[in-house]
Amino acid sequence: METWQGTEALILSGSPEQEVGYVARFLQVHPSVKVVCADSGTRHLAKLHCHPDLIVGDFDSSVCPDIDCERIQLVPEKDDTDTMHALQVVIDRGCTSAWIACATGGRLDHLLSNLSLCEYAWERGCTCRILDAQNELFFVDSDTIELARDDAYKYFSIIPLDYTLHGVSITGAKYPLSDASVTRSTMYTISNEVTASHARIAIKQGRAFIIRSHDRAR
Amino acid sequence: METWQGTEALILSGSPEQEVGYVARFLQVHPSVKVVCADSGTRHLAKLHCHPDLIVGDFDSSVCPDIDCERIQLVPEKDDTDTMHALQVVIDRGCTSAWIACATGGRLDHLLSNLSLCEYAWERGCTCRILDAQNELFFVDSDTIELARDDAYKYFSIIPLDYTLHGVSITGAKYPLSDASVTRSTMYTISNEVTASHARIAIKQGRAFIIRSHDRAR
Repeated sequence: METWQGTEALILSGSPEQEVGYVARFLQVHPSVKVVCADSGTRHLAKLHCHPDLIVGDFDSSVCPDIDCERIQLVPEKDDTDTMHALQVVIDRGCTSAWIACATGGRLDHLLSNLSLCEYAWERGCTCRILDAQNELFFVDSDTIELARDDAYKYFSIIPLDYTLHGVSITGAKYPLSDASVTRSTMYTISNEVTASHARIAIKQGRAFIIRSHDRAR
Repeated sequence: METWQGTEALILSGSPEQEVGYVARFLQVHPSVKVVCADSGTRHLAKLHCHPDLIVGDFDSSVCPDIDCERIQLVPEKDDTDTMHALQVVIDRGCTSAWIACATGGRLDHLLSNLSLCEYAWERGCTCRILDAQNELFFVDSDTIELARDDAYKYFSIIPLDYTLHGVSITGAKYPLSDASVTRSTMYTISNEVTASHARIAIKQGRAFIIRSHDRAR
């Protein structure tokens, strides 16, 4: 089977999420995205009425369903997770934008390891976003970004990864900041809101997650 | 009303968790722990048949129930979260061990900000652990710790907070390590298992979360 190339991929990870309506809505807006299942991520396909382009996994804790698509069989007892391997594959095949869904329920170690993939992807030139029913998360390093006001996400937060973020400025938001330092252990950058058409977040130095979120699962 | 002093506190945060059996089991094992509700954490009290020692919150998004106990009323639009304020109060009152429950469901920014409280507490001399139905998380800095083999938690993981952990050694475990470097963006320290009576984790330099977890919610 020919391997595909693509610039956009959605990776379905294996967390036990019941409500995958947000993934269906994402696929409607991104019809040309390549869909990659990481191991037990295949469990979500039936609800999504979705055919994957690739399945990656070792299937040591789940059975790979009988689906006609390309597969990469991993060996169990490997060092990296199935989701990380799926991300490596889509980056190798040219993806510069990747989303990972069904990655935040269940075990906290899996969740945090999935979040870290955004930093890994960034280091390889790919923008990776984690999506779930209430949140969108991405990684920034010493950068200035704009967040459009968006009814789907009432709040935005800045989560420091490095111990101190230096020179943090926020404009166009309910709680503005000017050239402030924000530390990991006392983060005063949670639950901000876009009040202008766009909020602008500038971080002079430091790595962080930006999270957009809303209160209720949709 | 007299304010209490204590060395151990359980903070009930406000995440929308349905299954709080793990909190009930914790309270059975720690009968003298002070129970502190952070704002909508009060929603969990009925299921737990539990009387709190203190309620802290601004109650801008929930109604404080009619419970006869000490209260600290916060002003809305404050900089820190209700859960952080509750933690500050218990540390001020002498707690050197704190657990935070009902802190991992719902919004990712709330979850990550709650996890960061473990580092905040450590900097103030208090050991803080996050508990949920599948996980126990705590913070370490350049330290050596032992994890007893425990049927309640099959797995343990090391999650770097600083970009690189230097000199990581693991013994007594399925995947041993010797004086390795572990980075945040390629963490090969997920889903390890204790094989001896205790696993020993030594980190020469760097801050990290240690997570013990199991696969299914109990």
